[in-house]
Amino acid sequence: MKKLINDPRQVVAETLEGFALAFPSLVEVHSNPAWVGRAKPAPQGRVALVSGGGSGHEPLHAGFVGEGMLDAAVPGAVFTSPTPDAIEAATRGVDRGAGVVHIVKNYTGDVLNFETAADLAAADGIEVRQVLVNDDVSVEDSTWTAGRRGVAGTVVVEKIAGASCARGDDLDTVVRIAEEVVANTKSMGLALSPCTVPHAGKPSFELTDEEVEMGVGIHGEPGRATVPMGTADELTKQLVDPLLAELPSSGEVLVLVNGMGATPESELFIVYRAVRKLLDNTDLTVVRSLVGNYTTSLDMAGVSVTITVLTDDMKALWDAPVITPALIWKDSTPRKDA
Amino acid sequence: MKKLINDPRQVVAETLEGFALAFPSLVEVHSNPAWVGRAKPAPQGRVALVSGGGSGHEPLHAGFVGEGMLDAAVPGAVFTSPTPDAIEAATRGVDRGAGVVHIVKNYTGDVLNFETAADLAAADGIEVRQVLVNDDVSVEDSTWTAGRRGVAGTVVVEKIAGASCARGDDLDTVVRIAEEVVANTKSMGLALSPCTVPHAGKPSFELTDEEVEMGVGIHGEPGRATVPMGTADELTKQLVDPLLAELPSSGEVLVLVNGMGATPESELFIVYRAVRKLLDNTDLTVVRSLVGNYTTSLDMAGVSVTITVLTDDMKALWDAPVITPALIWKDSTPRKDA
Repeated sequence: MKKLINDPRQVVAETLEGFALAFPSLVEVHSNPAWVGRAKPAPQGRVALVSGGGSGHEPLHAGFVGEGMLDAAVPGAVFTSPTPDAIEAATRGVDRGAGVVHIVKNYTGDVLNFETAADLAAADGIEVRQVLVNDDVSVEDSTWTAGRRGVAGTVVVEKIAGASCARGDDLDTVVRIAEEVVANTKSMGLALSPCTVPHAGKPSFELTDEEVEMGVGIHGEPGRATVPMGTADELTKQLVDPLLAELPSSGEVLVLVNGMGATPESELFIVYRAVRKLLDNTDLTVVRSLVGNYTTSLDMAGVSVTITVLTDDMKALWDAPVITPALIWKDSTPRKDA
Repeated sequence: MKKLINDPRQVVAETLEGFALAFPSLVEVHSNPAWVGRAKPAPQGRVALVSGGGSGHEPLHAGFVGEGMLDAAVPGAVFTSPTPDAIEAATRGVDRGAGVVHIVKNYTGDVLNFETAADLAAADGIEVRQVLVNDDVSVEDSTWTAGRRGVAGTVVVEKIAGASCARGDDLDTVVRIAEEVVANTKSMGLALSPCTVPHAGKPSFELTDEEVEMGVGIHGEPGRATVPMGTADELTKQLVDPLLAELPSSGEVLVLVNGMGATPESELFIVYRAVRKLLDNTDLTVVRSLVGNYTTSLDMAGVSVTITVLTDDMKALWDAPVITPALIWKDSTPRKDA
């Protein structure tokens, strides 16, 4: 294992320390328990948005803390759910009296720990609602999941729900919109290489030079099948076809082409090109897109494709200003582009 | 070789096609010859800024085309200088009657081809000036270079010179400022793994699990030495000490921690933390920073550290608005943060 780390046990703490030093005007990093909040808290009376999960998916989630997106992110150890006390601390920390929404990727440990934290917060009179993200169409159940996994579509949910909070929507509305985004969002990914968890010290699975893990999870969980290596166009079709099978046949869509961590940007644009060519043959119109590393799996080489069918309101919320370490725009911006 | 590509010969063309589809309101991609220009050209009377070089370093340079940075970028084949006709076409395309500045990384082929293009443009009455970037302190001469190589510090030069153009500075002033940034900017990088050029199909060099290439070039050129693997703190010290040896002992600085392409974001923040700890022991004050993949080497795992000593004017130009695919801020933003 070759990693730019000091001690496998300190990876998350030292990452957060560097992150705090890099973005002092945007985020505040809390310790014991660890959570990341906005440097400039939202005003009283706003619904607050909290997410979190195992580390190793950076910039998810802490990179999306800031104006117009998450009020707090709770990082667990690498690929390990955050603890209820940390989630509770974040929930209390950002509550502004109008309720708190937990955006939770569907992994059993995450769901349980967020529920426990919600119960603890409720005992103090904070109303907490959970929105479960399960956008990964690859498999129905998985290593750490009953039901479908939550993957890169989480970024879309967090952006749109965060904008809903920022415009002053009430708790029911934020939850309704977030759940609508989840329902309209489908993702699937593939791996060309495994990832190596620092404290494990060896790759999470094995692939030969001729194999691709199709439908891989963001922790290296098995996908639908190990398939032969192919061209970018061929492999992208294997990702997009299952998404199209579950989406409406027409409408305006957002496309997210997400790098798993070790994928060169050029390859992401080649995959994006392939997605666009495939969608040209449908009645889905790409009106927004995002190409880059947004939900990673440490040093895994690979890519995922997410498609969200946008309502007009969701499109307006996507376009609303956001100022976070990993996602930033105001007015006209690249990420608003089709 | 496992890459998400269709044909090694089409990597650059298809990347540009995807890039154009992703950012239609920001960039316009020209073909035959290939160059990337701003979708909204700068007004008449402004000095224009053009850069370029071999592909494989994305987002450098096309990702930095837009308001407040580059007017055009000219991508060559992977790790291959762009041709004079393409550079000339870009130079003509963005000339607004006030002269054009070529920002050129110091590689022999790039320097020659940009010079040839400048001569061709001059024949049509366009005044072109070349600013050479040679920020890499690792080696004095290298595989494709007489003199020091230009690496990630190029991003700093392009941002500050682009802001100088945008505020209406004349040709002499833009050149003077850009050269001042070059003089104040030092970089060094390391590789944990080689990169694989698509048309070569095999890794550019070899490293064992216990070896690091210290001072590696952005094409995988040899550095100062192959050194033993160490902790992030130890390896970062080996990058920063040579920079400090060449920089003034006090002043305000910008720190860029740049991922080589396959390095997880968590590791970049751990390295950034290490840089900050090292600088805490000096009279250099970190007032601006940037952490992420800005000048990559395809799928190389590794990192580079760049330090620029900022004058007040350079700091103001760094903070000026920029709207490009890869770098974006207006008003208060994360990347302005210390």
